[in-house]
Amino acid sequence: MEERQYIAMDTIRGDDGWIKVVSPRLAPPSLRDNTADADRLIKGLEKVMQGTRVEIGLPAAKRLPFLLREYGYDVHSVLYREEDTWHLIDIQPASKEPQVYGLAVDLGTTTLVLRLVNLMNGQILEEVSCLNPQTEIGLDILTRIHFAALEGGLAKIQTLVIEKLNKQIESLAKRNNLPSDALMGIAVAGNTTMTHLFLGLVPYWICREPYIPVINKIPLLNASELGIRIHPDAPAFVFPNVGSYFGGDLIAGILASGMARQERLSILVDIGTNAEIVLGNKDWLMACAGAAGPALEGGVASIGMMAGPGVIDKVTIDPGSETILLRTIEDRPPEGICGSGLIDLVAQLFLAGMIDIQGKFISENCGNRLKDIEGIKSYVLVPAKESATGKDLALSQTDIDALLRSKAAMFTILATITGMANVSMLDFKDFFIAGTFGTCVNPESAITIGMVPDLPRDTYKPLGNTSLSGATLALLSSRSRDEIQNIRNRVTYIELNVNQEFMNLFSAAKFIPHTDLSLFPSVRTSTKKG
Amino acid sequence: MEERQYIAMDTIRGDDGWIKVVSPRLAPPSLRDNTADADRLIKGLEKVMQGTRVEIGLPAAKRLPFLLREYGYDVHSVLYREEDTWHLIDIQPASKEPQVYGLAVDLGTTTLVLRLVNLMNGQILEEVSCLNPQTEIGLDILTRIHFAALEGGLAKIQTLVIEKLNKQIESLAKRNNLPSDALMGIAVAGNTTMTHLFLGLVPYWICREPYIPVINKIPLLNASELGIRIHPDAPAFVFPNVGSYFGGDLIAGILASGMARQERLSILVDIGTNAEIVLGNKDWLMACAGAAGPALEGGVASIGMMAGPGVIDKVTIDPGSETILLRTIEDRPPEGICGSGLIDLVAQLFLAGMIDIQGKFISENCGNRLKDIEGIKSYVLVPAKESATGKDLALSQTDIDALLRSKAAMFTILATITGMANVSMLDFKDFFIAGTFGTCVNPESAITIGMVPDLPRDTYKPLGNTSLSGATLALLSSRSRDEIQNIRNRVTYIELNVNQEFMNLFSAAKFIPHTDLSLFPSVRTSTKKG
Repeated sequence: MEERQYIAMDTIRGDDGWIKVVSPRLAPPSLRDNTADADRLIKGLEKVMQGTRVEIGLPAAKRLPFLLREYGYDVHSVLYREEDTWHLIDIQPASKEPQVYGLAVDLGTTTLVLRLVNLMNGQILEEVSCLNPQTEIGLDILTRIHFAALEGGLAKIQTLVIEKLNKQIESLAKRNNLPSDALMGIAVAGNTTMTHLFLGLVPYWICREPYIPVINKIPLLNASELGIRIHPDAPAFVFPNVGSYFGGDLIAGILASGMARQERLSILVDIGTNAEIVLGNKDWLMACAGAAGPALEGGVASIGMMAGPGVIDKVTIDPGSETILLRTIEDRPPEGICGSGLIDLVAQLFLAGMIDIQGKFISENCGNRLKDIEGIKSYVLVPAKESATGKDLALSQTDIDALLRSKAAMFTILATITGMANVSMLDFKDFFIAGTFGTCVNPESAITIGMVPDLPRDTYKPLGNTSLSGATLALLSSRSRDEIQNIRNRVTYIELNVNQEFMNLFSAAKFIPHTDLSLFPSVRTSTKKG
Repeated sequence: MEERQYIAMDTIRGDDGWIKVVSPRLAPPSLRDNTADADRLIKGLEKVMQGTRVEIGLPAAKRLPFLLREYGYDVHSVLYREEDTWHLIDIQPASKEPQVYGLAVDLGTTTLVLRLVNLMNGQILEEVSCLNPQTEIGLDILTRIHFAALEGGLAKIQTLVIEKLNKQIESLAKRNNLPSDALMGIAVAGNTTMTHLFLGLVPYWICREPYIPVINKIPLLNASELGIRIHPDAPAFVFPNVGSYFGGDLIAGILASGMARQERLSILVDIGTNAEIVLGNKDWLMACAGAAGPALEGGVASIGMMAGPGVIDKVTIDPGSETILLRTIEDRPPEGICGSGLIDLVAQLFLAGMIDIQGKFISENCGNRLKDIEGIKSYVLVPAKESATGKDLALSQTDIDALLRSKAAMFTILATITGMANVSMLDFKDFFIAGTFGTCVNPESAITIGMVPDLPRDTYKPLGNTSLSGATLALLSSRSRDEIQNIRNRVTYIELNVNQEFMNLFSAAKFIPHTDLSLFPSVRTSTKKG
């Protein structure tokens, strides 16, 4: 995993953690030196840390005299940094290796993902995911915002996610033979609304003009003030937002991609309900979001499904024999098709000459697979007897049209934002794709249908769950934390106007791959073959 | 009151409060500027405060969006400073005068004193005192330390004082027509054990060699984390200790006296169970404590009492007629005598030639007032028929001996500490006396019996409750807060060794005024008169 490299660079070689262990030599108290316990430890720490300010809060001070005496004043101190001050979290006997673990959390609208990390060496011990229990209130964000406005709603929706995290944390710790006290920090990345609900902040004004979050730059918190049951003095870092529609998850993505540290021009695309796009380099960052998602995630086609066992994620049509080769996840009998499979399928249909540049079926090239279902032409990808559902899995003209609108939206957004940034799409040296979609999609197919620019194929880099990778980096590295603030301050968020020019671009982009074939030289070549 | 001057200087003219009000001009949100609420306020504040860092904690952030909209984004912000960061406590409508109050608390072993202060102008609205409810566990500190070591003891003894303070705060606020939310800060001064019990810190090791407090320098806390029911985001400043036997109350005293800011040499004496002594100036401070108290406070003599109605606090014996003139508090019939009355009485007996330089009664000079009570010579100060008790109020030889031991201890401690500091007692330009005792004692009498040095009488300055005055200063002024840390760092605490030299000095000091009469030139003159 890519973030492991950062972990190693930042925390082991560079000693760059914002949570760290310092083991000062303390003289036990005597009549000659009857400094108080807390002051003695602070003095010892400040000496090792060369004058850095150290503070011991009241809860830590309460435990301190017992632990110092139990360990004979020979201790590891676990500390976290907030601005210029280091705060004591825990002390442990110096006779043992320090046990310091942390949690990186991707606070997704649908899915929560937790990663247990050894903060001493960056090792990832385990990763678990579960459904965000707020989905029981509503699958979409707006329903949850409305629910939070009801009497007691905000507290309830916050408690749902906090308690679910606590359960996951408890079992993670148990499976890894750790007391929950060994977890000494948590870093959380989510979109702006998820972050508000996690913090118990009212999200009411996020979805109302002029779209105002309560807070963008979140102060460092204590896990305990959020009700997260790890070490009682553990800090909680929550990714900042840029605004109502640009949340901490995307900042985590920018961080994980490394694009904000590079000279060269990169783009990061995260396709969920919205397509979220960031482009730039170490000098500037521009971001926008647009509705391009659902069809691309497989959510619109009648046979579309989220990726999962039995879902078709890869399709090849042999142009000579017209034989269809399908791959399903875990090789199970096919039940449906996910976004990446759909893009493959449409690309393959086009290359096989079964659909034209408008995406319309060319009946004479489709053989007996084309059926009329309820008056709509549909292409049978899997006949009923081979499918897991016992019904034909068929792609209708309507499904294709929806996908083409989505891909056109995607391409138009890319064209618009690059135009506003005054760069060319062909200048991208890295085209990062976040999320599961990014891991599954075949760039060749995405280019063929004209969804993304015709770049060398190895320019496309799937990054997986960048929200989680970013949270992991933030958990491990002080430098990453500085970079996060830096990213937040540098991102210019562009509100895309759906005006006449946008609509013109959109209309042209609905063709496969585009009305302007010069934009897709490698695709034009392919189609000639078909 | 002396501290009023500082209030005026520091907070009104000098704008030196660590709690202050800033009223930035905020543009309400719009589509052109959809900065989040918290970030918008911070930006506005940081602009007015010229780049100072401002932070809004989670509880304040939760209330913020509602209040900003209620007040139309036109607000006073109440902030407190911690190191280089200002934290938001409250926002109020800019259309009204800001309402910002605070509490100064003297956390006495016996008595709690609370003072309600308007932080906008330093005005003291009200002062109340009550018994420290921990006295029900034990009058002395040791009993409380032992109680705290029992199962649940620490929590109970902490709750006692916190809940008592809460009750006092509630009625103070009610009487002054303030919501408890209008109280936005608290400053607390107490001795080391009282401070530990107030904070819920284990005091076990304070009274055990090598006498180690849990903490000396206490971080700035939230009143709410202590359970103090004022504004939920109000800060709580607790005076630091120097060590187990030198607490925050004495630092408050040094602060209130101003001695640590002066060129000239001063001494501060606080007589309670122990006599606590600090001497020095703006360059150095030396402190010690010694057992000299009980007899001086009137706690040892059989007719001794704490100052209160009907207690004799002033005695004059006309040297010619041997007429005794008594003053009782509130002019009530006499019940007993307090420390200052006792010192007066012994001085007057000596000046009238009724006791000798060893304090022994000279029978022939005492007239018919000298009686033999249970085999001990006793001087009847108030005959039974004139007293409130219906019994003779008589001072026995034993009482005199006890007082002379105490005054000798006091003088020996003064001689020892000045000797160690290599200064002369006659160099003191100010002799500050803290507490009720200081307010009542007649310096003339104290000098006459040789308890304190023979300085010009106006050198003696009673300061009243310096713990409370110091807490008031800390509540009002940032500069005072810096001075407190400075005092703490500069105080050298001297452990007095009761060795042979000390005993020699003590023996000489038991005489009235001393074996070395040259130390008390003005007293020698007086005795000649008698």
